This record gives sequence, C-alpha cells and structure tokens, in this order.
Amino acid sequence: MTRLSGFAQTLKASDIAALLKLTEKPEVISFAGGLPAPELFPIEEMKSVDTAIYETEGSKAVQYGLTEGYGEFRKQLQKRMKDKFFVDCSTEDIVVTTGSQQALFILSQLLLDEGQTVLMESPSYMGAIMAFNPRWPKYTEVPTDEAGMIPEELDKILAADDSIRVIYVIPEFQNPTGITWSLERRKAFIEVINKYDVTVLEDNPYGEIRYDIERIPSLKSLDTQGKVVYMGSFSKIFLPGLRLGWIVANPQIIDKFVKFKQAVDLGTSTFGQRQAAYYCNMYDMEAHIRKITDLYRKRRDIMCASMAKYFPDSVTFTYPKGGLFTWVTLPEHVDATALMPKCLARNVAYVPGGIFYPNGGRRNHFRLNYSNMPEERIVEGVKRLGEVLHAALDA
Amino acid sequence: MTRLSGFAQTLKASDIAALLKLTEKPEVISFAGGLPAPELFPIEEMKSVDTAIYETEGSKAVQYGLTEGYGEFRKQLQKRMKDKFFVDCSTEDIVVTTGSQQALFILSQLLLDEGQTVLMESPSYMGAIMAFNPRWPKYTEVPTDEAGMIPEELDKILAADDSIRVIYVIPEFQNPTGITWSLERRKAFIEVINKYDVTVLEDNPYGEIRYDIERIPSLKSLDTQGKVVYMGSFSKIFLPGLRLGWIVANPQIIDKFVKFKQAVDLGTSTFGQRQAAYYCNMYDMEAHIRKITDLYRKRRDIMCASMAKYFPDSVTFTYPKGGLFTWVTLPEHVDATALMPKCLARNVAYVPGGIFYPNGGRRNHFRLNYSNMPEERIVEGVKRLGEVLHAALDA
Repeated sequence: MTRLSGFAQTLKASDIAALLKLTEKPEVISFAGGLPAPELFPIEEMKSVDTAIYETEGSKAVQYGLTEGYGEFRKQLQKRMKDKFFVDCSTEDIVVTTGSQQALFILSQLLLDEGQTVLMESPSYMGAIMAFNPRWPKYTEVPTDEAGMIPEELDKILAADDSIRVIYVIPEFQNPTGITWSLERRKAFIEVINKYDVTVLEDNPYGEIRYDIERIPSLKSLDTQGKVVYMGSFSKIFLPGLRLGWIVANPQIIDKFVKFKQAVDLGTSTFGQRQAAYYCNMYDMEAHIRKITDLYRKRRDIMCASMAKYFPDSVTFTYPKGGLFTWVTLPEHVDATALMPKCLARNVAYVPGGIFYPNGGRRNHFRLNYSNMPEERIVEGVKRLGEVLHAALDA
Repeated sequence: MTRLSGFAQTLKASDIAALLKLTEKPEVISFAGGLPAPELFPIEEMKSVDTAIYETEGSKAVQYGLTEGYGEFRKQLQKRMKDKFFVDCSTEDIVVTTGSQQALFILSQLLLDEGQTVLMESPSYMGAIMAFNPRWPKYTEVPTDEAGMIPEELDKILAADDSIRVIYVIPEFQNPTGITWSLERRKAFIEVINKYDVTVLEDNPYGEIRYDIERIPSLKSLDTQGKVVYMGSFSKIFLPGLRLGWIVANPQIIDKFVKFKQAVDLGTSTFGQRQAAYYCNMYDMEAHIRKITDLYRKRRDIMCASMAKYFPDSVTFTYPKGGLFTWVTLPEHVDATALMPKCLARNVAYVPGGIFYPNGGRRNHFRLNYSNMPEERIVEGVKRLGEVLHAALDA
C-alpha cells in the first residue's frame, strides 16, 4: 500500500461514474456524454492543414514552445475575442491552455485557499466542481432562473460571507440547463460583483453554437475592473482531442497563470495550437461553425419534439437556444439516479442530475445531450425514456 | 488588484529567469536550454504519419479520448518498458501524460501533504522542484557521488525523518550532472528504500540517449514492492512540442492518477498520442534514436575536448555517458551567477548551478547543454566561456 496524500484519499469513484461506464456499450443510445458530432470534424481539411504546418514551419512546429502559447494563435484569439465576444484585449492578456479544464484547475489553485467559498449557478458543470475540489472549497449555490443568476440573491450571499473568492458561471447555453443569461442580468451581475473583492470565472465553451438568439455581450466585455476571467475552448467548435482552450485575464492573473502552468505541463502542444491556427487561416471557421450549428439545431428540435410527444405531462424540459444540452425536470419525488438501471435495461442513458449540484440533493433531474446522436436514434432513445418515465410516474 | 491564494503569492520570477530571458537573443551562443536538435526531427516522415492517422482513424483520432491514454500507444509503451527498461508491466499500469512535467506535478499532489519531505539528488532537476513546490515541501539533498546517490547516507536520512514521502531521482544521465547510477548502487538503493514507507519517482527522460555504456536495469525493474513510479518522456527522443510522457505505477497510484488527471486536463491530446504511436509503427524509432545519439555523442566529445583546451585547470566538468548535459565545477569561491553578465557580454550563456539545489547554496557550478548547438558554435562558445573564466580565475 502506498501512503497517499490527504487529497488523494478524497479522489473516489462515484456511483454515477460506474453507471456512466455502462452507457459506453455500443447498443446503448447514450444522451449522457457531451461529445461533439464527429461526422462534422474537418478531416480532409486537416490533412492539408498538417502538411502546410510541416512545410511552412518545419521543426519549429514541434519544438518546445512558450508557456503562454504560440504567438500567431494568441493573435487570432485576440481578434476572436473582439469579433465574437465584444472583448477588447491584447495578445498579452491571453494564455493558451490544455483544454479549458486546465484553465479551471489552474485558476482554482491561483484564486482559492483551502476552505474558501465558490459560488456557482445551481445546478452547474460537474467538471468545474472536479477542478475546484482539490482546494476543498465550500460551495454555495446561487438561486438561478431561466434568465440566469438572480442578482439580488447573489448580492445577499456575497454580503453575508466574506470567504467567497470565486464565482463560477456559464452565461451562455449553460451546462447542464441550457439556460442563457439575458443582457439585463449580465449588467446587474457586474454591478453586484463590482461591490465585492471576488473573481468571476466566465466559462464559455458553447457560446458560438447559437440557434435562435442574437449575440449578447460576454461578462468579460462588461467588466471594467479586471474582475472577470474569460475561458474559451475549441473543443465544441473544432476538435476536442487536440485539447485547446484559452483564458483572457488581467495581467496579475496572467503572470501567475503562466508561472504555474510551467510547473503543471510546461506548455500546451505546439503542434496542436498550429493545427487550430492554420485551420482558421486556411479555411472558413465561421462556415464550419454554421454547419455544426445547423445540425445541432435540428437535433435539438427533434429531441424537444420527441420529449413533448413521448414524455409524461408532469415532466418538463428546457428548450436551449444554443449549446449541447437540455435539462429535464421530473416531479419532485422521482429520483433520476434510481431510474437509471431501468433506462440501461432499455439501452438508453442520461446523466442523473444530482452530480451537477455541488452540495448534493435535488435528484429529480437529468441532463440530455443531443449533439452526438443521429436523428433517428434521438427519436428512438427519447421514446424508450418516455416508456420508462410513464411506467414510473403512471404507477 | 486580484486577491490571490497564498500559493499564488509564492509564484515569483527568479533573478535567474530574468538572466535566462537574455540568452534567447539569436546572437547568443546559448548552452542554457535543454532543447533537442531540431535538425533531426523527422518532419518529412511526420507528413506521412499525420495523413495515415486521418485516413486510418478519421474523426476518432481527434475526438475526446480516455484519460488513461490511447490504447495502442499504451500497448507500445508496455512493450517499450520491457524491451528497453527491463520492466514487466501491463498496459493498465501505464498512463499517458501531457509531458513528464505533468507526471511530476500530479504525483506530487497525490503523494505529498503540505510540509512533508522530498529527498533528491544534490543537485537535481529544477523543473521537479517547480512541480513539488505547490506542496511547500521540505527538501533534503542526499549526498551523491559519480556513481549516484550514496545508499548509506540515504539510509541515515530516511531513519532520521519520518516526514519523508517521496524520493525523486534521475538515475540515467542526470540533469544537471550527467551522472549515471551503477547497477550496484541501484540494487543498494532498492534495499534501503524497501525498509521505509516511501515512494520513489524515477525520472528517465534521457535513458535512451546513451553513448558509451551498456543498458543498466531501471530502478522500476528492481522494484518488487510497487514503491517505484517510472516516468518516461518522448520529448528527447521524438518531438517535445507534442507534450508526451507516461508513468508506470502500482494500481493504487494509477487509479488516483487517472481520477486527478481528469480534473487537471481531462486527457492528453488524442491526436498527439497517435502521432507518436503511428510513427513507431511506420518508421524505425530505434534508427532514429541512433541518429540522435550519434550526433549528441559527437557534440559531447567536442564540448568536453573544448573545455579541456580552453578552461582553466582549476575548473572541472563531468564527461556524461549519455543525455544532454555536462556539469562544470568552479573553484569554491567563484560564483557562476555573478559571472553570467560577463558571459552575456560575450554572447555566450549557461545555467548557473544554484537553481539546481532546492535549498540554495553552492553557486560555483554551471550546467552546459550540447544537444542544441552546431559543432563550430560549441567550440566558439566554450572558447568565449574559457576567456571569461580565465579572466575571473587568473586575476
């Protein structure tokens, strides 16, 4: 037996992880993951991209690189932040990360001492909870409705607890609920947080996958005090396997982030960064995103229409205006985790909602993903779920 | 001003980092880095490798992958461990990492509570110190001679301090000294550590770059109690920009490692792993390593011959039997950090030895790298260093 750190001993397999393992069998129609549709990956284009990288840069493309990231890529990201997210920043305000998961992990180490408090939407992304956990934080869930975090509630919570250091939010097409914050809410949010000494982590992996909604300025674009750290990702709009994300932050955070990232992995793949940068130069990334968006919109429509048709009336769900997920609410007495074995027996799967609540509780929800499944499988899967739900609720 | 964690406040720029920044100017003959020779990177071959990946696997090669790593790659690594390092392990004992720097960082979090003790060779790799620092450890340097760590001294230190959890060692062509442990020392080392409840981190990024020495069994191959974690890297024998390393460890550590890596970056680039795996299948990796070894052997010879010719007699240096570095010792009263500005004025650079000692002190050393510099520049650079040293020592 190896003698492990106290922290390592807290890394336990969850029951849900065991359940999710079962969803990986090919016969299961799994709405559990958050994977993009692989049939849209630009594989032919990538052949030309890689060849162009080797021919243009040769060995430089695969040598050690700067921890901050590949210069050309950071320049593109700077422009992207302006064009897409209304954020005026300089290349120096950007660091490339090994996926946005790494950004979450590093930022939690830079911003939290052990036992301090993190505020989150309720529910929120389980991967963020995983990244914060090594700091043993206290989590406080901020009441959230269909327009986002409720500013008055946030204000009350901030006023009452001076151990709050971080507010983690996903204002666009939230994971798991699919909710998008209104502009009014965003402005009110910034007004509230400006009264306190806190840092906001704005996680926006889905912001470019929008169906029926205009662009809304990001929190970072409304931030006049350097309190918001923006986190972006190429995993949903490009190729998740390359592990590419980025942050935009104030110079003080950038400085510490780079120093710590050096200890964590020295730097993100120099070749991977070029794969994204060259693709954006050689092809039309916006057209690619439109293709993704069109497909996912169709799948969302089919999923929502199927749920309306097959689910019991007492079951409600969100109709996301973008992103990859819809959030299903069962009557309060029904436990979505307990229903999982019945779903798996029918070869259909979701993520039970409990794990999206950092403090546990509320088990009458589940999350469905529609990006990774062909249309006819969506219909069939929702139909099977409907049968399980009818059997459980009509009994 | 952002309110940072206590840990973040300890992340400071060192004076040496500022000095090393100056070595990056193109006119400087820099022996300071640890970069492989880019002229040997198999760029033409990589074009075919990438095309083969896209044609064989298509979208699978760039989709999210398992945190443990790409199956085929882990199988290759399992075979590599047997063929090259005498280690019998299964694929399940291996996790692919985002460079071996990530392995160091994750292992330090899994094995150390704050304030516990890490043993190291004296001197040792500064990147490891960087990875351990977030745990605020106490460092104890174990007396080390030209055959490796001295077992009797190690035994005494282990017996006297029960806060020791980790022993970090580089038994092959050590960084910075170039020293290789003899087989006798390795056996004696294992005998000593088997008496204590500690974990050994065996870091072996240079083990395949050997000039005039037979293979010696790795510590992991002598480990009968699961106490040694082996860390390997593709950065020195293949392409450092891909950020590919791996660990071999007991099941208990592997389990925690995978769970924590999920929070840290979800997984290592799925495409990057295939680049290494396909290269190994399509080309002759051993021939590639021989090419690297032949070039570096030549450069080592030229560097050592030049030092013998141009350095004052009171300056000594190691003659490494493999790896990338030689370690230079000045008379005790001479401070290598203080000499750096004089070297930079002559457009030549090294890494001052002080930073390789976790507890500071001993400043009469510097490290020279010979892998990244053409032969005539090695001669010219060593000649300039010799002039600076003569001026300092003959005065």
